[in-house]
Amino acid sequence: MKIGFIGLGIMGRPMAGHLIDAGHEVFLHRVKPVSQFLVDKGGKALGSAKAVAEMADVIILMVPDTPDVEEVLFGADGVAGSLSAGKLVIDMSSISPVATKEFAARIEALGCDYLDAPVSGGETGAVNAALTIMVGGTDEAFARGKPLFEIMGKTITHVGPVGDGQTAKVANQIIVGLTIEAVAEGLLFAQKAGADPAKVREALMGGFAGSAIMKLHGQRMIDRTFDPGFRIRLHRKDIGLATEAAKSLGVKLPNTAALQDLMNAAIEKGDGDKDHSALVLTLEEMAEKS
Amino acid sequence: MKIGFIGLGIMGRPMAGHLIDAGHEVFLHRVKPVSQFLVDKGGKALGSAKAVAEMADVIILMVPDTPDVEEVLFGADGVAGSLSAGKLVIDMSSISPVATKEFAARIEALGCDYLDAPVSGGETGAVNAALTIMVGGTDEAFARGKPLFEIMGKTITHVGPVGDGQTAKVANQIIVGLTIEAVAEGLLFAQKAGADPAKVREALMGGFAGSAIMKLHGQRMIDRTFDPGFRIRLHRKDIGLATEAAKSLGVKLPNTAALQDLMNAAIEKGDGDKDHSALVLTLEEMAEKS
Repeated sequence: MKIGFIGLGIMGRPMAGHLIDAGHEVFLHRVKPVSQFLVDKGGKALGSAKAVAEMADVIILMVPDTPDVEEVLFGADGVAGSLSAGKLVIDMSSISPVATKEFAARIEALGCDYLDAPVSGGETGAVNAALTIMVGGTDEAFARGKPLFEIMGKTITHVGPVGDGQTAKVANQIIVGLTIEAVAEGLLFAQKAGADPAKVREALMGGFAGSAIMKLHGQRMIDRTFDPGFRIRLHRKDIGLATEAAKSLGVKLPNTAALQDLMNAAIEKGDGDKDHSALVLTLEEMAEKS
Repeated sequence: MKIGFIGLGIMGRPMAGHLIDAGHEVFLHRVKPVSQFLVDKGGKALGSAKAVAEMADVIILMVPDTPDVEEVLFGADGVAGSLSAGKLVIDMSSISPVATKEFAARIEALGCDYLDAPVSGGETGAVNAALTIMVGGTDEAFARGKPLFEIMGKTITHVGPVGDGQTAKVANQIIVGLTIEAVAEGLLFAQKAGADPAKVREALMGGFAGSAIMKLHGQRMIDRTFDPGFRIRLHRKDIGLATEAAKSLGVKLPNTAALQDLMNAAIEKGDGDKDHSALVLTLEEMAEKS
């Protein structure tokens, strides 16, 4: 299949690589030295998103944020400039669910299909083709995209109509962030009360306090190893999407709002590029100041 | 072994039953019609905690709160009134870690051992002898108590010195409560954004958002079945222990404090006797009011 891939960052590079390895003809935009290996293995570098959309039947986006998706799709020399009817646009970036619905409507007005398909699993998941992929769109569009998702990911769920993939991703980031704070507050309490947090984690792991976060991020808090992983700065972006969308939907999420404050404080103190388990450091500092 | 068991509530009854079934001579206090079956299977009913402490070599407490433990141990006709040196007191109630250290010191001054050994796993865990038991005390005292814990529980951890069992239990209640709120805020967001929370839960379950709480309590939120389980009212008591102890330790736990507010609001609106997964109802009401 002729596939366009726009956004060759830490996540996009291995994802595009898997598509090339699977035998697809892949058209790339903005190839830099770090992504040259994709051309070496058969990818074709083109000069604009518009050129990619002209050559490919399926155009995949994996860019940082909502304005980047808008620019790639509808900016000068953007995808929409050359999109002919029947093509499929798949946005795998993590962006606003609200903006997604608007972008999808504009692409569908050109006679094309649109899927939002954000991922979780991080760089490791991308490299190992083990991503969790949350998909929004019609059944027909999902059926078209599914064989490609299976090349890049392991757990693929069709959540619902367009936007529902992004909504699921935002819910994921809310739950992951709040569970990190749950483990951080619990283990910090234990430590300040004089108990050994490692022993407490061990005692609690098998019960209702047990989680993937307790297992991995709880261990990072105990080992004091905060190399990312997933950076606080990036998680803060996603929690910003959550609180903005919640506001526009009239939903109050008190602990998500408090988590955003904690993340802002962590970035303020210089921890933005540490793993999100390092939020415990900001809680510790609050304890010392009080 | 001669064991005293004081506190024959929903948890204490099956726990005492397992000890009798294992062949121990068990002395009971405050036997009511609902606990008469323990006498029928060989337990001996006595008229006071003091009488129990006189007959038994190990005295187990399983009562509601810190003042109840204090009353049973040090009140009129309490355990301390007849405690001879060499006996072992095990408090399996969930109470203040700070008060625990003081109670232990007073019991140890009588030449006795003291263990704090709160449990998690609820009525089901008690009935199935599958409790998680978090123990604080000396190595020697733990070695004495361990064979009894193995009759009542499945995962038994010696966390550290006296008080550390209660500290681990408080940490557990913090983490469980905050993870429930994490799942509630995430699924509520998804629902208000128009996605199907059941699909979102399914998409997220295998990733970092996955937890024992997402599995069980997330499903309860989706099914709208809020029979306890563990009542908001009781969890509120434990979170009160957390925030009081945190205050005395100079630790700030922002989301735990917010969780306490949410629980107070839930009790205020009449949900105190619902399962703690019903905290989502209070969040929903806040959304409707906003």
